[in-house]
Amino acid sequence: MNKNVFRNLSYGVYIISTLDGGRGTGCVANSIMQITSEPATIALSMNHDNFTNSCIAKSGRFAISILSESSDSALIGQFGFQSGKDVDKFEGVGHALKEGLPVIDDSCGYIVCNVIDKMETSTHTVFLGEVVDGDLLEDSPAMTYAYYHNVVKGRSPKNAPTYLPEETEGADSSAAKWVCSVCGYVYDQETPFEDLPDSYKCPVCGQGKDKFRRQ
Amino acid sequence: MNKNVFRNLSYGVYIISTLDGGRGTGCVANSIMQITSEPATIALSMNHDNFTNSCIAKSGRFAISILSESSDSALIGQFGFQSGKDVDKFEGVGHALKEGLPVIDDSCGYIVCNVIDKMETSTHTVFLGEVVDGDLLEDSPAMTYAYYHNVVKGRSPKNAPTYLPEETEGADSSAAKWVCSVCGYVYDQETPFEDLPDSYKCPVCGQGKDKFRRQ
Repeated sequence: MNKNVFRNLSYGVYIISTLDGGRGTGCVANSIMQITSEPATIALSMNHDNFTNSCIAKSGRFAISILSESSDSALIGQFGFQSGKDVDKFEGVGHALKEGLPVIDDSCGYIVCNVIDKMETSTHTVFLGEVVDGDLLEDSPAMTYAYYHNVVKGRSPKNAPTYLPEETEGADSSAAKWVCSVCGYVYDQETPFEDLPDSYKCPVCGQGKDKFRRQ
Repeated sequence: MNKNVFRNLSYGVYIISTLDGGRGTGCVANSIMQITSEPATIALSMNHDNFTNSCIAKSGRFAISILSESSDSALIGQFGFQSGKDVDKFEGVGHALKEGLPVIDDSCGYIVCNVIDKMETSTHTVFLGEVVDGDLLEDSPAMTYAYYHNVVKGRSPKNAPTYLPEETEGADSSAAKWVCSVCGYVYDQETPFEDLPDSYKCPVCGQGKDKFRRQ
């Protein structure tokens, strides 16, 4: 079996939010699909290790913010490469409450769901949610995972089903590589990495230059 | 709730195949996502009304052929806009047997699964399949549903969760439209429809000029 074939499955890039008690929290997910149209239901797959998973199980609710090609990719670092156990994911992020759940302003739309069923697998829960609210926001094409991977040069968090340990393509293999130790972004711009100003930040997760490692 | 937000969820375009007794059959689906990586599992959503659904339930197996941007869009008409109850879907279609299931040659990869669980909803079954084989084929980007909709100008079959009855955008609304009555494709090329040769075929589903209706 050639596992690289899984890279040819298409996904969007979403921020899934829910409530931890009265506090908003969330994470990045790719694995979302509409199941039925009337009533509208959505399936969401989430790793057991994501703090958001246990919060959805407790609250019985989740919201999907659909990232667009113009969404700030630092949102993926903020929500995808740190845990809601440790940080307030929504701190400094523009958002509004929809049916009581926080949704991201800088997205092309949102969907709010109540959990009505779930299916457990070895590592992930598939939540089935009935849609209770949803609307369009920014008028920009939805970001696909392929766009994130090929244009933003982003990588998958380790909890994502799309994560492959050998994710290192996309950079010149003859030269030394500088790789963000937080999100795996491989620096591939013309300016030598050493010459970048100290204020340089990872374009994917927003971490500083000191988080990059030479490989 | 604004149902147009569902159009911002991203999908690929896949041909799902299985066995009807000893005969291959299949249909088009968008709703596929990887759930776990080790062992690799895939969730597939399929309408109860699709003949392929009952054949997967009986055989306990399905294969996914991943269409690419260079795949012949007539495959979508062949598999998406007619029923395997009535026709042999694989007649005249280049395919190979993988683990006993037919997969499409003109695709960028295939995945073969054994069903290990399922979740029922009002109109669709979500099958969970454990991957038993998979490989890359054509070296062309996977076709996304957005590409099919915006570039190929294709529409959703009525059984798809992505189907919206008001799907009529994409053509010049000031002029008369010629619409394929089989798949909903709206003719939008420069040559007036009336001047096309009798041999003209719908680029999406391959039906003849006589299947078009003026609107």
